[in-house]
Amino acid sequence: MTLRVRRNIDEMPGYVPGEQPQESGWIKLNTNENPYPPSPHVVDAICRAARGPLNVYPDALATPFREAAADVLQVDPDWILPANGSDENLTIIIRTMCDPGDVTAFPWPTYVLYESLAQIQDCRTERLYLEADGTWDEAQAQRLREQARVFFVPRPNSPTGTVWSPEALSRLVPERGLLVLDEAYADFMAGPTGIGLLKTSEFSERLVITRTLSKSYSLAGLRFGFSIAAPAITRQMRKVKDSYNCDAIAIAAATAAIQDQDWMRASREKILATRRRLVEALPAAGFRVTPGEANFVWTQHESGAHREICERLRQHRILLRYMRFSGVGPQGGVLDGIRITVGTDEQVDALLDVIGACV
Amino acid sequence: MTLRVRRNIDEMPGYVPGEQPQESGWIKLNTNENPYPPSPHVVDAICRAARGPLNVYPDALATPFREAAADVLQVDPDWILPANGSDENLTIIIRTMCDPGDVTAFPWPTYVLYESLAQIQDCRTERLYLEADGTWDEAQAQRLREQARVFFVPRPNSPTGTVWSPEALSRLVPERGLLVLDEAYADFMAGPTGIGLLKTSEFSERLVITRTLSKSYSLAGLRFGFSIAAPAITRQMRKVKDSYNCDAIAIAAATAAIQDQDWMRASREKILATRRRLVEALPAAGFRVTPGEANFVWTQHESGAHREICERLRQHRILLRYMRFSGVGPQGGVLDGIRITVGTDEQVDALLDVIGACV
Repeated sequence: MTLRVRRNIDEMPGYVPGEQPQESGWIKLNTNENPYPPSPHVVDAICRAARGPLNVYPDALATPFREAAADVLQVDPDWILPANGSDENLTIIIRTMCDPGDVTAFPWPTYVLYESLAQIQDCRTERLYLEADGTWDEAQAQRLREQARVFFVPRPNSPTGTVWSPEALSRLVPERGLLVLDEAYADFMAGPTGIGLLKTSEFSERLVITRTLSKSYSLAGLRFGFSIAAPAITRQMRKVKDSYNCDAIAIAAATAAIQDQDWMRASREKILATRRRLVEALPAAGFRVTPGEANFVWTQHESGAHREICERLRQHRILLRYMRFSGVGPQGGVLDGIRITVGTDEQVDALLDVIGACV
Repeated sequence: MTLRVRRNIDEMPGYVPGEQPQESGWIKLNTNENPYPPSPHVVDAICRAARGPLNVYPDALATPFREAAADVLQVDPDWILPANGSDENLTIIIRTMCDPGDVTAFPWPTYVLYESLAQIQDCRTERLYLEADGTWDEAQAQRLREQARVFFVPRPNSPTGTVWSPEALSRLVPERGLLVLDEAYADFMAGPTGIGLLKTSEFSERLVITRTLSKSYSLAGLRFGFSIAAPAITRQMRKVKDSYNCDAIAIAAATAAIQDQDWMRASREKILATRRRLVEALPAAGFRVTPGEANFVWTQHESGAHREICERLRQHRILLRYMRFSGVGPQGGVLDGIRITVGTDEQVDALLDVIGACV
């Protein structure tokens, strides 16, 4: 008899991450990586840990990291749950909260992984349709808030870079579930992050914030993220994580990274300066840019030929992210565009040099 | 309103791993770690990778490791799924195969994590009761084989070190599911591992083998495991794993480790020699040893005072693993004993020096 896996797994296509060529020679502006290297303290910490006792299990709770992050964020270490990338935090949250058939909700368009995680957990998904200016229909939001066990909201959103106000977020907190504020790009924002909400708002026990070291700390290769939530929530999430979900080297590296706030801020300032240049230059080539606050830019060209533009840039060994979202409104509809990661000045110059000829 | 997580998560106690003191000065014979360091090539590979492009995402499929492991095991790389420890492979398997309410089965006593993973997935669990000599009732096995979606079988088993024959295993392959052969300790076995079954048996499409680098490769601190299964199964499991579940440094380290088979074999030979000494010495202190083929020894003392013996050894800064299993037969019943990891000769000498005074 043929082996059958679960129906939901069999039927799902699987999440497809952005292209990751393993050879050099590409200008990679397609997966929101930080173009600058991590703090030199990270490299030192890794080599030191490599000579440590790798034959024994790591600290199951990654205590040194929790203490360092707690110090930076001014929360108690018991609020912090380190994970193998913030994708793992998102996975843990949905496995802690959602039975099959439960509703997970998210704005749309957004990070496509939320939908894949819901499919793996055999959940129903509901999309909160975004207008072009990032607003939504309050009646629909209220319905989803009543239904959702988990409401994923990235702030800034991807691919648009939109940052919703705390007041708008408060209207998405599920009545019987959690609001998950995915702050993967929050270090690039101008205003305050969601940490203040955890400490002061009336829904602080309904909120989980996720963070990653992949973007602002230049450590996409390391896989390290963490969540911040009240201990009553974090304690349940700990049951779901693998016992030793972070390895000894990653713990040492992540601890060194978060302790070097100066390095992270310097890298961020360079990226924000380059973003301004990119945003100012794109309209001359016929692009309309959505105002955003992340280390990427969401843009649409007057020709609408987004896929072709990306293909032509590929010939120049420049990778951008062509994105196409279907079902972008209650009546369906398709939205596509190009997400451009903010690289170094040199990378962005190389892009601007040729983009006019590629549109 | 109080936040409710899933009922199964709320009610489960959570898996409790063995004690991991983070300070030095302990003789740790409680969590089956390898007392010897990993290959020096591993340390070199880590430091080299630390100076590489950590700002970009790693290879999502850990291709260099898959190719190296495929070469060692003489299988195609598409049969191999690397993961963040073999615990993650086990998690991926159960999430791929089991809907809530589905049956997962395993021998009992065994690795307690199988039960925790089933609880997280809200599965029913069924125990195949083991006699003292490691045999089971064939009628019960047949019933479980009809019911189970996943049958977890560690070979060697923990805590007993039992190795079941391929013929016995063939009678556990679920009719509508997978046999998962957990070969965490297989490098310490005398006879052939399960890889041959994958290549030749009539149930090769119903079998997943899991391996870890934690034990025989001295890399518990690194978190790296992998599964070996037919591509039709591996392809479905890939949908369930996090996109980048192995980091760039772990991939480099694991690749170097598996390529240094000589180092692994030398470390194994030392451990097997020390195991013989330990097994021969324990009876003089009143212990009965279960014959086993792993890097640990399952033993019971004539006094039955296993918990107390472990507590007394703790005073000498020696950690053994006291284990207590309830429900060890259809009518209940309790089995307890002590699992002793085979350390270095010096560590085992230190244990033997004081154990007589601790019983």
